[in-house]
Amino acid sequence: MTTTQTHPKVQQWAHLARQLRVDSIRSTTAAGSGHPTSSMSAADLMAVLLTSYLRYDFDHPQHPNNDHLIFSKGHASPLLYALFKAAGAISDDELMTLRTFGSRLEGHPTPVLPWVDVATGSLGQGLPISVGIALAGKYLEKLPYHIWVLLGDSEMAEGSIWEAFDHASHYKLDHLVGILDCNRLGQRGETMHGWNTEVYAARAKAFGWNAIVIDGHTYEEIDQAYAQAMQPNGAPTLIIAKTIKGKGVSFVENKNGWHGKAFSKEQEEQALKELNYVRSQTFPVQKPENLQPAKAPAKKPVALPTYDGKEAIATRKAYGDALQALGAANPDIIGLDGEVGNSTYAEEFARAYPDRFFEQYIAEQQLVSTAVGMSVRQKIPFASTFAVFFSRAYDFIRMAAISRANIRLCGSHAGVSIGEDGPSQMALEDLAMMRAVSGSTVLYPCDANQTAQLVAHMADLHGIVYLRTTREKTPILYGPDEQFAVGGSKIVRQSNNDQVTVVAAGITLHEALKAYDQLKSEGITVRVIDAYSVKPIDAETLVAAAQEAGKKFVVAEDHWPEGGLGDAVLEAFSRRGGPLPEIVKLAVQSMPGSGTPAALLDAACISARHIVTAVQALVRGEQGRGSQRA
Amino acid sequence: MTTTQTHPKVQQWAHLARQLRVDSIRSTTAAGSGHPTSSMSAADLMAVLLTSYLRYDFDHPQHPNNDHLIFSKGHASPLLYALFKAAGAISDDELMTLRTFGSRLEGHPTPVLPWVDVATGSLGQGLPISVGIALAGKYLEKLPYHIWVLLGDSEMAEGSIWEAFDHASHYKLDHLVGILDCNRLGQRGETMHGWNTEVYAARAKAFGWNAIVIDGHTYEEIDQAYAQAMQPNGAPTLIIAKTIKGKGVSFVENKNGWHGKAFSKEQEEQALKELNYVRSQTFPVQKPENLQPAKAPAKKPVALPTYDGKEAIATRKAYGDALQALGAANPDIIGLDGEVGNSTYAEEFARAYPDRFFEQYIAEQQLVSTAVGMSVRQKIPFASTFAVFFSRAYDFIRMAAISRANIRLCGSHAGVSIGEDGPSQMALEDLAMMRAVSGSTVLYPCDANQTAQLVAHMADLHGIVYLRTTREKTPILYGPDEQFAVGGSKIVRQSNNDQVTVVAAGITLHEALKAYDQLKSEGITVRVIDAYSVKPIDAETLVAAAQEAGKKFVVAEDHWPEGGLGDAVLEAFSRRGGPLPEIVKLAVQSMPGSGTPAALLDAACISARHIVTAVQALVRGEQGRGSQRA
Repeated sequence: MTTTQTHPKVQQWAHLARQLRVDSIRSTTAAGSGHPTSSMSAADLMAVLLTSYLRYDFDHPQHPNNDHLIFSKGHASPLLYALFKAAGAISDDELMTLRTFGSRLEGHPTPVLPWVDVATGSLGQGLPISVGIALAGKYLEKLPYHIWVLLGDSEMAEGSIWEAFDHASHYKLDHLVGILDCNRLGQRGETMHGWNTEVYAARAKAFGWNAIVIDGHTYEEIDQAYAQAMQPNGAPTLIIAKTIKGKGVSFVENKNGWHGKAFSKEQEEQALKELNYVRSQTFPVQKPENLQPAKAPAKKPVALPTYDGKEAIATRKAYGDALQALGAANPDIIGLDGEVGNSTYAEEFARAYPDRFFEQYIAEQQLVSTAVGMSVRQKIPFASTFAVFFSRAYDFIRMAAISRANIRLCGSHAGVSIGEDGPSQMALEDLAMMRAVSGSTVLYPCDANQTAQLVAHMADLHGIVYLRTTREKTPILYGPDEQFAVGGSKIVRQSNNDQVTVVAAGITLHEALKAYDQLKSEGITVRVIDAYSVKPIDAETLVAAAQEAGKKFVVAEDHWPEGGLGDAVLEAFSRRGGPLPEIVKLAVQSMPGSGTPAALLDAACISARHIVTAVQALVRGEQGRGSQRA
Repeated sequence: MTTTQTHPKVQQWAHLARQLRVDSIRSTTAAGSGHPTSSMSAADLMAVLLTSYLRYDFDHPQHPNNDHLIFSKGHASPLLYALFKAAGAISDDELMTLRTFGSRLEGHPTPVLPWVDVATGSLGQGLPISVGIALAGKYLEKLPYHIWVLLGDSEMAEGSIWEAFDHASHYKLDHLVGILDCNRLGQRGETMHGWNTEVYAARAKAFGWNAIVIDGHTYEEIDQAYAQAMQPNGAPTLIIAKTIKGKGVSFVENKNGWHGKAFSKEQEEQALKELNYVRSQTFPVQKPENLQPAKAPAKKPVALPTYDGKEAIATRKAYGDALQALGAANPDIIGLDGEVGNSTYAEEFARAYPDRFFEQYIAEQQLVSTAVGMSVRQKIPFASTFAVFFSRAYDFIRMAAISRANIRLCGSHAGVSIGEDGPSQMALEDLAMMRAVSGSTVLYPCDANQTAQLVAHMADLHGIVYLRTTREKTPILYGPDEQFAVGGSKIVRQSNNDQVTVVAAGITLHEALKAYDQLKSEGITVRVIDAYSVKPIDAETLVAAAQEAGKKFVVAEDHWPEGGLGDAVLEAFSRRGGPLPEIVKLAVQSMPGSGTPAALLDAACISARHIVTAVQALVRGEQGRGSQRA
């Protein structure tokens, strides 16, 4: 490599790297917190990338040909912001607002900044999301942009990283480049593998990647590694750069105890002296090409499936039917599934539009990450698996909300009503989990026509949208022309002298209707509300019921008592203000086993029989007895 | 290998394998559902294991020297139950109760059966949990038992599997043997790597394991592989067995579309004919040795840390102090942390008891799994990381509840009050997540003395126990002798004419106390309740407050509005029955950014100022105005 040691750009790279280190220190010292040393280790890597390889129009962050630069090690945000300054995207004044209230420069990057695609800071997420972006680039848009991902060595311990490795090679994503800043030191000491760069190389190769081991502070090696990574050979590339944490400032270099620690003013002064800092400069970044994304068929009106009610249809089946219909109408609809497409019925979309369906295998973290990556590229992803297995990806869903991603998740096989497979397959916490996501929408249909309508709405909604479907076939309650607004509900039974209101959704709505019939035969009339929109919940209709049908409610749900439909109803009244009505929650209270759906619904005290008992107790004025168990 | 083709046990193995296949078919056909073909592929592997390598006293499942047999591919439960029958542990009658209501033989294995250590059925969990068991065996008990883990090839796509590979080799767990039943077919088609056994071998080796590729239906190869795996060489072993799904019955062998599908009666008849089934037999299993676990120091009374109140102390620091104190008293206390021990203060335990502390690096799924494995060996694990990163392991926590595991989790850095690091590091959904776990306990202390007491209680509690700690230092409110029952609360301010009750916990309790002072100066007296036990919540004290201090409540929490303390209070009243009081929930409503803790608490409308405003509005009778935002 001696031939390239006099690369004409070495001086520029060195100047920029110095500036990146200086700015990483200045901004964190001003903030009084942050991660300067984790930024300094990668400064040389990023200096070469910005000025010689990245193609990005910082004036047009939405340019479709822009490369993507993703800091999977989000705590190196000072370096990222220093890069934005070096590219002329932000001023020095703004740089110095790091971590202050109201600044766009948050402690970890978020898309509040237009050049940031996704929020990072929960380690091990940047690479899986990049796989989603790369899938869109290679297979959908067919654009040559690259995805450059800066990885920390600590995060290589996250399993999600290896899901991403697996998928990136399987899908031959050779425009994806991982840059591993192997600085040896994690937050509280050495990582599991320290500077054993060969371990990472062996693993990357075993997972089907190219692997290049370099010194991360030798510009020629960095330059050659990028050049090599740019050569498409059908496999993604991991550049494993041996680096020194805190590189450039003697008293922090390779020292433990400096993670996430800003320099004092005195330390900053000494550091800037050592770095021989002269002046800030703006550096030219190559503009991207001007290619058009691959042509897609024109959009058409959606022709949703309809169900005539002659036979019962599982809502999961209606999901598959409706998704296929959306796919026919809109070429931006993307299908993703976690290797259970014959259960979620995503297989219908996969068969109809194989070019827009990406099998995610049993890798739920990657499933959600791919959806987020598709959202970055303005696609409309629908990702499905068993509802319970989205719990595997909760951190990714939470972060997707911080990323302001627009993703649609469909979880099938909700609740004890799945029957014989037992509790490991039963989603009993998914409503709690999904409601507690910022800005989320949570839908839970009870019949096929309603499902189809809601799936169509999902395509147009923003943020994290979740649909819960049922394994069992359920009768059709609604005509194909019935409309279902998000945030609405349906009163499916009412009279002029309702004594109690029963609120249900999904499988329990059918139990509520059976309870209605029995109660009516006993002379008790109840209002039955189908709360298919769990979040936002239809507070108007609930409040009206409290006024018209008495202040007594029974809420039945196939879910733990915490965080589901019952709590959504309580929340609605609490938000409205004033004293709340009496609300008896029927929910799953103890660990279910296997059995028939009917046996398990009954054992969980959420079947028609238990709704009847709860209503009877309320009518008799027995407080809080219902069918609840302690 | 020709020399061993006449192994004397081949006939026994073949007979047992035939019986295992037959029983897997019979039980699932009787049930009308289940996974016969996924059981049949591994029947030969398990036949050799049961009769020639496993050491297990089925009459004494708690024998400390028993090997562990874990079906990570839990859907092969028919095979597991057939093994139990072959070992004489269950009768044929019980075998035929598979998947029926009330049977111990659930669709996927759970510890309702005494020979099952942990629930499986969510793929990719059996191996990580086995790592925890193996750590206990090698480093704590120093017993020579083996852990045999049957893996499916579909689950090799789960990142958690690779976290387990990483940790197992790092900790040199050479008594851990993975048996990969590589039958090529997942639920809906071929896996990512099909029968490419060399891919798995290369990955296992790159992750520091021994790898042995065999034909999973050739007894001599199976036998030799086990014999080789039994030779300790400082590394765990993966046996990669190429198998045929449905092996033994011609019309299902290697056929897609047979996953999770029981045979019809006619198909069963034909299959049994093909398998040439004669009679059921019980097979002898080797008994384990009778070694004693390594001697541990005697237990001593706990001397908890105390805080005199002269300086503010972060509850996370008190957690570390208290955990160290527990460690001094009880040698069964185990410390685990996700590479943030200097933030969670688990480092105090790690320094004091390095032999009982296991660094889990940035691998939260493994962190929780190791805790579950420790619980299997009757240890008392405390696992800590940032509260928000337990969301990475939610599926593991959920499954731990089904496993009836006793694990203690401590999440630090809760809520917006962490300040500058921004939303990726803020736990705002952890209370919702943890409350919606079956049988869980959720604790949230506000000062150091309270924290110490609660940590001591955690050691004695069963099930999933979660403690939420705060990053910031907080004043000491309680004396060191104050007692805090789980399920209790503290009334920290009250008078004879309280007009409103403010419920808070953790950081917001301090805001509530500031609000109390300001309100008092305005002539408004409020009752302030410290609801440190979020689940179970102290319904008695809340109901008493509604009777004595008026039916108006303000609940303030550093959490999203869904599923947290506010919902716990609503739940308490709802369970009690009758109309609910007016309850204004102050919680984090919109996405926070970076800033000082005080600025963020105020921006989230959960600071003292907002509590004051909410109380004033309630006192004036303005319903539901408070500081809530839409």
